[in-house]
Amino acid sequence: MQNFVFQNGTKIIFGKDTEQFTGQEAAAYGKKILLHYGGGSIKASGLYDAIVQSLREQNAEVFELGGVQPNPRVSLVREGVAICKEQGIDLILAVGGGSVIDSAKAIAAGAKYEGDVWDFFTGKAEVSGSVPIGVVLTIPAAGSETSNGTVITNEDGWYKRAMGHQSLRPQFAILNPVLTYTLPPYQTACGITDMMAHILERYFTNEKHVELTDRLCEAALRTIINNAHTVLAEPANYDARAEIMWAGTIAHNDLLSTGRIGDWGSHDIEHEISGIYDIAHGAGLAIIFPAWMKYVYKHDVNRFAQFANRVWDVEIDLNDLEKTALKGIEKLEQFFSSIGMPVRLAEANIGAEHFEEMAKKGTERGPLGNFVKLQEADLVQIFHLAK
Amino acid sequence: MQNFVFQNGTKIIFGKDTEQFTGQEAAAYGKKILLHYGGGSIKASGLYDAIVQSLREQNAEVFELGGVQPNPRVSLVREGVAICKEQGIDLILAVGGGSVIDSAKAIAAGAKYEGDVWDFFTGKAEVSGSVPIGVVLTIPAAGSETSNGTVITNEDGWYKRAMGHQSLRPQFAILNPVLTYTLPPYQTACGITDMMAHILERYFTNEKHVELTDRLCEAALRTIINNAHTVLAEPANYDARAEIMWAGTIAHNDLLSTGRIGDWGSHDIEHEISGIYDIAHGAGLAIIFPAWMKYVYKHDVNRFAQFANRVWDVEIDLNDLEKTALKGIEKLEQFFSSIGMPVRLAEANIGAEHFEEMAKKGTERGPLGNFVKLQEADLVQIFHLAK
Repeated sequence: MQNFVFQNGTKIIFGKDTEQFTGQEAAAYGKKILLHYGGGSIKASGLYDAIVQSLREQNAEVFELGGVQPNPRVSLVREGVAICKEQGIDLILAVGGGSVIDSAKAIAAGAKYEGDVWDFFTGKAEVSGSVPIGVVLTIPAAGSETSNGTVITNEDGWYKRAMGHQSLRPQFAILNPVLTYTLPPYQTACGITDMMAHILERYFTNEKHVELTDRLCEAALRTIINNAHTVLAEPANYDARAEIMWAGTIAHNDLLSTGRIGDWGSHDIEHEISGIYDIAHGAGLAIIFPAWMKYVYKHDVNRFAQFANRVWDVEIDLNDLEKTALKGIEKLEQFFSSIGMPVRLAEANIGAEHFEEMAKKGTERGPLGNFVKLQEADLVQIFHLAK
Repeated sequence: MQNFVFQNGTKIIFGKDTEQFTGQEAAAYGKKILLHYGGGSIKASGLYDAIVQSLREQNAEVFELGGVQPNPRVSLVREGVAICKEQGIDLILAVGGGSVIDSAKAIAAGAKYEGDVWDFFTGKAEVSGSVPIGVVLTIPAAGSETSNGTVITNEDGWYKRAMGHQSLRPQFAILNPVLTYTLPPYQTACGITDMMAHILERYFTNEKHVELTDRLCEAALRTIINNAHTVLAEPANYDARAEIMWAGTIAHNDLLSTGRIGDWGSHDIEHEISGIYDIAHGAGLAIIFPAWMKYVYKHDVNRFAQFANRVWDVEIDLNDLEKTALKGIEKLEQFFSSIGMPVRLAEANIGAEHFEEMAKKGTERGPLGNFVKLQEADLVQIFHLAK
């Protein structure tokens, strides 16, 4: 087990009707609130009105910035930074899913920085502090509600880049599973894939003695797998929605990383695809993760066999561990298919035309991944496995 | 799943040589540090010197209060409160195990209160704030390093009582598994039992839809069980010590309670025993938990069968779930025996002479437990099962 520092102080307020506490939680940080959100769904559902009312009851001064798109854009982040600087915003309240929260985080960091916020994503500058962030989560997927990271897309060249800082962890996150009842099946499945991918990125490590975190990862994966078909068949099943929502947070709050170095190659590869094609992040992961696994499993057949056995109940064949390992990958791929995800690029209408370009762009700052270090040529091969 | 609020912001600094960061972490809270510890073991091991040096390097003014005993006493807590009030202590640094940390927490709360600190334990007063607490952990067991609770014994009547408050969570906790190499086997086993009991108290709940936390509990239990004999056979096995140490924290940081109400009857019953007999808390739990299980398992045979199957690999006998359930209890009892714990009161030289007295005292503020509510007569029967 490696040395580690773990601190995640985000206050989770979980359960039915919890959005009513938004104003009360926000009030601890000041009066000037920037309400940040995506499209019209929170207005149609009544959530927008409920939150504005909750904020007004605390005499908050509410500023607004809507319009966050999937794969959130740096141009909107810059608008948010300007509002924060002009108005002296005390708290950015992100109402939505990972895109909205990531956008809020980038704004939060940019508001405390003289230069351009994209500098944080190119490594030109480091975050030194942020405006506090609060969250009302509507899409369980990205885990951004308690993570320290953000992923933003720069339209100028379609670069999709990540950065993180401890100050970017939201102060509070309100999670009401009822708010996820109206998520369409495809988006629900994308979220499920994303949270599973967050766990898988951590699971495939070269660290040998990480039994507790291995087992915690397996516990979270099994729970997600066991509830996925239920939430798709019964969108208003509270208990199943609650399991998925809480698992999505645990998947990415850094507990499952303690003592180990995860891989993250598949996420980086997917960023290249969704940077160009505007495919949903979860769908991209459903395609790339099995391909990545097929490409790297020989690096540690035992770990893949353990994954097959403990997560998918594949019996361990001691005479043919490779067979056991491959069955686990097959089960994962079948599962993604069964929840309506594409598992080949062709299913997402993505051809081979940009393979070389994506492989080049993805590795221009160095090889990807930690479990196995992937060079440009490796990425091209993974894309071919994913065709 | 029940609604819940979860927040645990303790900064964990885990791994080899991490005690060197004590001064640096403490410095964030001020210069006046009350160093709180137990007996001479930290002086013999050199840990005391290393910590004092680390504090002095940050120009800290170090005050000292040693002498914490197992089942920490309110009389020493009162001494600590007086020092904090007189000297304006900025941080209480607990170096030791659960007793030292619990004592530090009581001091921290008492220092911010006009009346007598015992008032918090009788319900006469509520904690409203505390002096910040830091921890260097030497015994993985109680989980007090990130919990919000403390258990103190009042020698005047030998009452052992618990209380908790969010402000009592330590600000930081330094966990170096190497510091646990010198723990004697008996104390190691007591710690293992204590952390398992913390998980079991949470596991036995009447809440039906808590799959994620069930599985996380099972993951932590299996890890502890799988590493217990290793740390006893090889006291200096870093990886096994690390698994046990980190599991001890996870067992009691409240993550495993989310969405559910635990039982806690066995802990309360054990407090009556160790209040009178000065038996190690872990040893008391090894005796009481199996007895409690035998007394209550019919309340939810399915849950006990799940425990037997998922934690102990007992095959589920669908024609006789009760048999499956009982096998799980038997496995737990055998496990406690195998690590050198007593599983009967007689093994700890405790007779039946105080059964009625303990049952009466234990229930004088109401029935114990939540999974099954236990009255005075129930406690007597559990004591008889534990004879």
